[in-house]
Amino acid sequence: MSSNSMADPRRPNKVLRYKPPSTENNPTLEDPTPDYMNLLGMIFSMCGLMLKSCPATKADMLNVHLIPHTHNDVGWLKTVDQYFYGARNDIQHAGVQYILDSVIPQLLADPTKRFIYVEVAFFYRWWRLQAESMRQAVRQLVSEGRLEFINGGWCMNDEAATHYNAMIDQMTLGLRFLQETFGECGRPRAAWHIDPFGHSREQASLFAQMGFDGFFFGRLDYQDKASREQLREMEQIWRASASLQPPSADLFTGVLPNGYNPPLSLCWDQFCSDSPIVDDASDENNVNSLVGYFLETAAAQAKHYRTNHIVMTMGSDFQYENANLWYKNMDKLIKHVNTQQLNGSQVHVLYSTPTCYLWELFKANLSWSLKYDDFFPYADGPHQFWTGYFTSRPAFKRYERLSNNFLQVCNQLEALAGPVARTGPYGEGDSTVLRRAMAVAQHHDAVSGTEKQHVANDYAKRLAAGWDACQILVSNALASISGNKENFIYCNYLNISVCPLTESASTFMVILYNPLGRRVSWNVRLPVKGAAYSVTDPNGQTVPNEVVPVSNFTRAVRRDRGDATHELIFPASAPPLGYSSYTVSKTASRDLRSRLAKRIREQAQPRVDAWSPREIQNEHLRVLFDPVTGLLMEIQNLDKSISLPVYNASIGNDDSAQASGAYIFRPNRSEPLRVAGRAHTYLVKNKLVQEVYQNFSSWCSQVVRLYAGQAYVELEWTVGPIPIDDGLGKEIISRFETSLQTDGRFYTDSNGREILERRRDYRATWNLSQTEPVAGNYYPVNSRIYIKNKKFQLTVLTDRSQGGSSVADGSMELMVHRRLLYDDNRGVGEPLLEPGVYNDGLVVRGRHLIFLDTVESSAYQHRLQAQQEFMAPQLVLAPGGGPSFHRGQRSLKQFSALKQELPPSVHLLTLAQWDPSSVLIRLEHQFERGESANGSQPITVDLLHLFSSFTITSLQEMNLVANQKREAMKRLSWRPATGAARRQPYPPLDPLGVTLQPMEIRTFLATIQYTGPSGGQAEL
Amino acid sequence: MSSNSMADPRRPNKVLRYKPPSTENNPTLEDPTPDYMNLLGMIFSMCGLMLKSCPATKADMLNVHLIPHTHNDVGWLKTVDQYFYGARNDIQHAGVQYILDSVIPQLLADPTKRFIYVEVAFFYRWWRLQAESMRQAVRQLVSEGRLEFINGGWCMNDEAATHYNAMIDQMTLGLRFLQETFGECGRPRAAWHIDPFGHSREQASLFAQMGFDGFFFGRLDYQDKASREQLREMEQIWRASASLQPPSADLFTGVLPNGYNPPLSLCWDQFCSDSPIVDDASDENNVNSLVGYFLETAAAQAKHYRTNHIVMTMGSDFQYENANLWYKNMDKLIKHVNTQQLNGSQVHVLYSTPTCYLWELFKANLSWSLKYDDFFPYADGPHQFWTGYFTSRPAFKRYERLSNNFLQVCNQLEALAGPVARTGPYGEGDSTVLRRAMAVAQHHDAVSGTEKQHVANDYAKRLAAGWDACQILVSNALASISGNKENFIYCNYLNISVCPLTESASTFMVILYNPLGRRVSWNVRLPVKGAAYSVTDPNGQTVPNEVVPVSNFTRAVRRDRGDATHELIFPASAPPLGYSSYTVSKTASRDLRSRLAKRIREQAQPRVDAWSPREIQNEHLRVLFDPVTGLLMEIQNLDKSISLPVYNASIGNDDSAQASGAYIFRPNRSEPLRVAGRAHTYLVKNKLVQEVYQNFSSWCSQVVRLYAGQAYVELEWTVGPIPIDDGLGKEIISRFETSLQTDGRFYTDSNGREILERRRDYRATWNLSQTEPVAGNYYPVNSRIYIKNKKFQLTVLTDRSQGGSSVADGSMELMVHRRLLYDDNRGVGEPLLEPGVYNDGLVVRGRHLIFLDTVESSAYQHRLQAQQEFMAPQLVLAPGGGPSFHRGQRSLKQFSALKQELPPSVHLLTLAQWDPSSVLIRLEHQFERGESANGSQPITVDLLHLFSSFTITSLQEMNLVANQKREAMKRLSWRPATGAARRQPYPPLDPLGVTLQPMEIRTFLATIQYTGPSGGQAEL
Repeated sequence: MSSNSMADPRRPNKVLRYKPPSTENNPTLEDPTPDYMNLLGMIFSMCGLMLKSCPATKADMLNVHLIPHTHNDVGWLKTVDQYFYGARNDIQHAGVQYILDSVIPQLLADPTKRFIYVEVAFFYRWWRLQAESMRQAVRQLVSEGRLEFINGGWCMNDEAATHYNAMIDQMTLGLRFLQETFGECGRPRAAWHIDPFGHSREQASLFAQMGFDGFFFGRLDYQDKASREQLREMEQIWRASASLQPPSADLFTGVLPNGYNPPLSLCWDQFCSDSPIVDDASDENNVNSLVGYFLETAAAQAKHYRTNHIVMTMGSDFQYENANLWYKNMDKLIKHVNTQQLNGSQVHVLYSTPTCYLWELFKANLSWSLKYDDFFPYADGPHQFWTGYFTSRPAFKRYERLSNNFLQVCNQLEALAGPVARTGPYGEGDSTVLRRAMAVAQHHDAVSGTEKQHVANDYAKRLAAGWDACQILVSNALASISGNKENFIYCNYLNISVCPLTESASTFMVILYNPLGRRVSWNVRLPVKGAAYSVTDPNGQTVPNEVVPVSNFTRAVRRDRGDATHELIFPASAPPLGYSSYTVSKTASRDLRSRLAKRIREQAQPRVDAWSPREIQNEHLRVLFDPVTGLLMEIQNLDKSISLPVYNASIGNDDSAQASGAYIFRPNRSEPLRVAGRAHTYLVKNKLVQEVYQNFSSWCSQVVRLYAGQAYVELEWTVGPIPIDDGLGKEIISRFETSLQTDGRFYTDSNGREILERRRDYRATWNLSQTEPVAGNYYPVNSRIYIKNKKFQLTVLTDRSQGGSSVADGSMELMVHRRLLYDDNRGVGEPLLEPGVYNDGLVVRGRHLIFLDTVESSAYQHRLQAQQEFMAPQLVLAPGGGPSFHRGQRSLKQFSALKQELPPSVHLLTLAQWDPSSVLIRLEHQFERGESANGSQPITVDLLHLFSSFTITSLQEMNLVANQKREAMKRLSWRPATGAARRQPYPPLDPLGVTLQPMEIRTFLATIQYTGPSGGQAEL
Repeated sequence: MSSNSMADPRRPNKVLRYKPPSTENNPTLEDPTPDYMNLLGMIFSMCGLMLKSCPATKADMLNVHLIPHTHNDVGWLKTVDQYFYGARNDIQHAGVQYILDSVIPQLLADPTKRFIYVEVAFFYRWWRLQAESMRQAVRQLVSEGRLEFINGGWCMNDEAATHYNAMIDQMTLGLRFLQETFGECGRPRAAWHIDPFGHSREQASLFAQMGFDGFFFGRLDYQDKASREQLREMEQIWRASASLQPPSADLFTGVLPNGYNPPLSLCWDQFCSDSPIVDDASDENNVNSLVGYFLETAAAQAKHYRTNHIVMTMGSDFQYENANLWYKNMDKLIKHVNTQQLNGSQVHVLYSTPTCYLWELFKANLSWSLKYDDFFPYADGPHQFWTGYFTSRPAFKRYERLSNNFLQVCNQLEALAGPVARTGPYGEGDSTVLRRAMAVAQHHDAVSGTEKQHVANDYAKRLAAGWDACQILVSNALASISGNKENFIYCNYLNISVCPLTESASTFMVILYNPLGRRVSWNVRLPVKGAAYSVTDPNGQTVPNEVVPVSNFTRAVRRDRGDATHELIFPASAPPLGYSSYTVSKTASRDLRSRLAKRIREQAQPRVDAWSPREIQNEHLRVLFDPVTGLLMEIQNLDKSISLPVYNASIGNDDSAQASGAYIFRPNRSEPLRVAGRAHTYLVKNKLVQEVYQNFSSWCSQVVRLYAGQAYVELEWTVGPIPIDDGLGKEIISRFETSLQTDGRFYTDSNGREILERRRDYRATWNLSQTEPVAGNYYPVNSRIYIKNKKFQLTVLTDRSQGGSSVADGSMELMVHRRLLYDDNRGVGEPLLEPGVYNDGLVVRGRHLIFLDTVESSAYQHRLQAQQEFMAPQLVLAPGGGPSFHRGQRSLKQFSALKQELPPSVHLLTLAQWDPSSVLIRLEHQFERGESANGSQPITVDLLHLFSSFTITSLQEMNLVANQKREAMKRLSWRPATGAARRQPYPPLDPLGVTLQPMEIRTFLATIQYTGPSGGQAEL
């Protein structure tokens, strides 16, 4: 309590009185619910000591929560290892090992001090190197809440270029380490994305499902922030799903006052040059002025927030390497500011954590306004839209997506094959390497493309090492399951038609492993040198195939790697969670060979005019081309008699000096330049596929492709090396122009899950002053973008994250590649040049799948196809003829680990070994509420009898990241301004009938027993 | 022992075998003296645990002593306080408080670690702020030798611009703190001047007398270093006095291998970017390459040294703010390098200290070559002579010298008056403030002039605060001693003829306090406005006086301060260690006034031709001027009939772009430009003084002055503001050209004590390749410089430290002022512009005293006069008429604290309060051996009965810094190559007959009792 009688008249500080928020904004006064509060308090303090350890606050004062923290990028200007060890400090001074070395003794020395730590990728490494005495001390600090883990993912993932599958995995990886190391007290209560450059709604939804009580972030549009400060809407409830029943995806979300930095002039890290507090006899003594400044700063900040609690984030990038500087000065700050209470000051400053702050906000018992949309795009000033990174480093973005695909395959086969997968005939298989590499790659300077080149190389190298370790695992598993120790070959350059085995062997096996819970079809395409092949399926039936020449585009991309002349194409399919094995043999038909040679000669000299293809067509679609320009002109859905003029062109935005960079997109003109007004084209047409090859320039081409039976048009674009010898950076987009009346609206997915409506030059929560007609309308496209009118919808699926927009009605575009000559001054300090191994710029190849359908039918199309895109079948090749795995073991040419196929709306999101006797399973409803008449229905699955490879002996439902039992997950119930959403009582789990609601993900830990020799427990 | 059987074949490091020094250089083998060694070992380990704590070395290996250290400038780019607190880190990141905070826990955590600390000015501040628990822990570390104090002065003083009086005082101040705080274990065994820019011989002599066993430094001429490395003469015995009986001034001196920095690539401070040692599984793992590099580096370094021990200085400026970085990596270095011993490596690396290293060198029992000269000037590359700082900031250099003068007066009066001096009628008197300020000012970036301007201002401010506190003390003491509480006035602007009291009062007292042990005469010169005054001496006798007009030079310098029109001049004298009080009264003589007015009018329009003075003359000297140019032309010693043409002119060196700076002197031409070819002159002549005013330019003038009875010519030069609007910096020298045949030789003093012979373009210890004909021949002149032929000597005394040289035979010059437009890239980052309060450059005034005499008589002249220059009488003024101090106390108009005058050759170097019941006394023989027939004789003083103000009740002789009893002072006896100098047994002290040998300083602590009311113990 403040006592004026003890006031010291020598202290001249201005006394700032805390003005409580007006009662208008404070429904607590009208609606106190003390019983409810007590109950929740009890729940919140489940980790016994955590809340007891929260420092005392003063009810009648403004409480300033100092949050000591460090932000440790899991790679950015330096690699993860360089950051951990403090190597290459010439690039950036940063050494995480020293940060933890430094902070722990400070905490041990003084029980009032607090620290939060976030990035488990680093903490885990440090922990590994500590002696048991240090570990014990840290456990004690954690159990007392003095060291608090926040967020707790392996990294702090990006939100714009990430896919929900990998986001969940990386959070699971980090949180599992904390749970196993520190138990319940190591479970973070708050999510903490202080640095990512914009915030997706799906991220908030996932955080809610992970059990977080609240979420804090630092970066949002500068206009948005100003508006929120004024409206006191810096803290809200984010209703992050349009499908999930509130409050399942409700997340209390706070915008931090100053990004994640301390207030101006109050940074006491070794990196800062702010004045230390000198309270000694010295000319440098600055106590009075600093205390006065602090009180003013706190009062100003309190005006933007609703309670008598505010936070100050005391830390920043890689700070606390010498924690003494921070703590010594904060100790003095606390002492001198709080001493002012004797003079009537009503400001109380204390060491705190996000959890303790969150708890004070909750106790305030206010009702909070709701947020429904997301925080994209992010601009930190006029013309400064961070929308370039949606596309930056497109090759790495694809490699990351593909790596997730392979990790899921690796996880599944580890779970299905059991211990033999890890120790088998091919050596030590290990999914951990790829799991960690993928988790690292989710970092907001990794898949985002905003890291330095050498760091991007390191991320890729880590993924490649993960592939290597998983390939051993997959080989072990496939040999065990199939019964044959084949020389399994993983051809990772199929996208440029390179595979030594298929090029040279006269016969080989093609194993198509399908990670989905339903049977899929797939057009296998392999580089060969022969002219004629026969293909047989697992049952020995002949499968039709075609051999087409490798295009000039591919030859150019491939450069000196590989010299396959042709590609063998055949349609294949694989059973759910299983594989089919095909056999390919070269046949020597002289006739065929000479015919082919003729065709190659013809195609080598395509003639644009006379030979220009007018159309391609299969049973579902017809695609028309402009005979003069060679450009795509119209798409027709033959099934539904929809015909839509679609003008598609690759176009490039020149980059004006200093504008676009790794983060920022800022074209020098609103109307981009066409790469070429017309394309040189030629046609490849056979029973299996029809392809129009469009050559726009020496560095930009596209294949428009229709496979037999496909309901979509595939555009395979190849862009690069983007020339820069004209002194201009370039950003290449693929634009679709249609006659659809779209009313300024378009639709993009959020991290591959729910769809958000976008409106051009508009933001839902403030009156936008648009400064960039193009860049200011770009949004992340993780898997799909579409435009529609009342009847028809044109949907594009992507194979990686890209930026996309609709800058005019009926128009839709995706940025596919970018190469820039200037740094954009957001820290990376390099232009996004991506020199590549040939030093002239990367060539990037990718695919857009185009659906034209009715609005009501579209979701069913794109949901299923998008799932097949990110969980595509894995091709494994082998020369064949390998010995039996076990003597006398039967060869399995086809295999499924499921007893029955899953319904189309159910996705087996996760199947992975958890520990030697249990597996982690996630089932997901892959439709949104109401988007598909068939797809969006609730659906029930018999989980107990789903798998054939093992028997589930017990089943525990968990929260999304499996660090809490589902029934124990009791998040704080924040009261929305619209009225409290009553939490539904959670029904007891019925393993025979697990029901999924639209967009629901249910997570299980299953204890299992392997059932047979083909799956698991195989002896060596 | 190394064991090849345990060699690990996976370790590919090159095994470097240590090659022992050749036996030629190692007389140990022929001359082992084990008994002697044991004895010395015992002596050396007097601080019981210190040597036990030295880490084990390996006799058969190359031992690499890692010396963790930090170098903390006591002001440079930032002020002392800013460095201590870590304020203004925008200028330079440096915070000493954090360094000590950080190092101590590291030492506490691991008994193998070592650290040395040097600058007590900082340590003392830190210690003051520590809790008792921390103090206890530090005491323990010190007692175990884990934290070792080295050097231990208040600062690491400069050696080129410092005076021995202040050097001894600052060392005493620091070492006393250590002694009182840590006892014998806190007594540094090694001197450590790693940064000063050249090394004076007197410094080494003083270090020897302070009891140091050895001395290490970092900077020496690059050619010298190369030569020493090649000759293995990096370590020698420095015979640092030509007068003192060896080994009293012998000092084992080592040149550090790499300045004071770690080897290239092995800096692990937060300021460095060298790779940390990564011995974990990581792409960053660098153990093998780093260990290999270290072994190569150690082997290369060992080639330059003579034993199987070498040092690496692991630290640098303000390092160890985060000690963990250093220690964590050194731990790994030690571990991995020493592990290589299993593979046959013969390198052993260990944490160590200078003391432990020194002990190993001593144990090697070699004989060492001798060094007789000094290490000036310092060049770190061709054309890069650090000789500019000998003169940089001449105004501050004078203020520092004057402050020493006042500090000694303050010290003496504190000791003489007793407690009343500290608490008396004028308030709390305190000599500590000035003592510390002076100690700080000795720092090698303080009085050196190499600090930033704002730091120079801070040094001056500290001195001024010291003056304030001492003035109170002096007033208290004078009131107590004299019996009158006068309103004592200290006019500190007499050099520009400003003193409000004397200007306005019609009558006032002038108290002349003489700090010397012999009676001195002094020409008092006071600014007045009146035209006629009468002056009476303490006995009431009239003293002749003259009133002369204030010169235009002074009016210009004074600018808007003061408006005295005249100066009153009268000859005064004061008894030894006492004062005389004179009374001055204005008399109103109309006649006199009108006569004066006439004279002023005449002088106001000096005419160069007709009126040009031809000569001035007193009983001893005649000075002739060129009637055409007005320049000094000839000096005649009338007593000895010596006549010497002396051409004197002020000349300026223009500064070429980027050459000269605060540190470096590099004129753009060897032959400087004259400021003016002729001077405008006028003459002032009366019975007391004859003055020729020479005006060279608007910013350069000089008064050539002869007081009646003076044996020297006084040149009072006034230089500034040096114009720079021509875009050229300038360095102004005063050059004397004579016809003396000097054979390239000239003579300069070392820190105001012994004289060193200098030879143009020559160095005594290596074959000089001269790159700068002027700057490369500059040497520090702290008090005097002279040239001579076989008969005659021309000596110049300075009133501050300056650079000086003889760049041609018969020529001698002193640089008096410099103003430069470019930084010289040695770190200070500012051009030496010295803007001053008027922002156009400082005006500096000073005096050169010129003696022309025979060689054999000169020393007696310059020794006594130089003493009177740095210990000049202190003028204290008062209006008079103050009340009695004690009721009825007799007024003392004259006072001496000595029972008898000291002989001319004895200097009372120190008389200062030590503690309430004792005083510190230093007696010094002020002549060198053989330089003066009379002066250089041994002399005996009755110390017991010397003082009248107090009775000495006991007397203890101490070493020079009073941190050891004289008889306990047993330094390591290093064996010179010329044969061991047998240490003379030290005779028991006879207080009645203290004999001083030439240049000897003897230091005593005397317990005293005050004897009477006039001195000490006075009641208030």
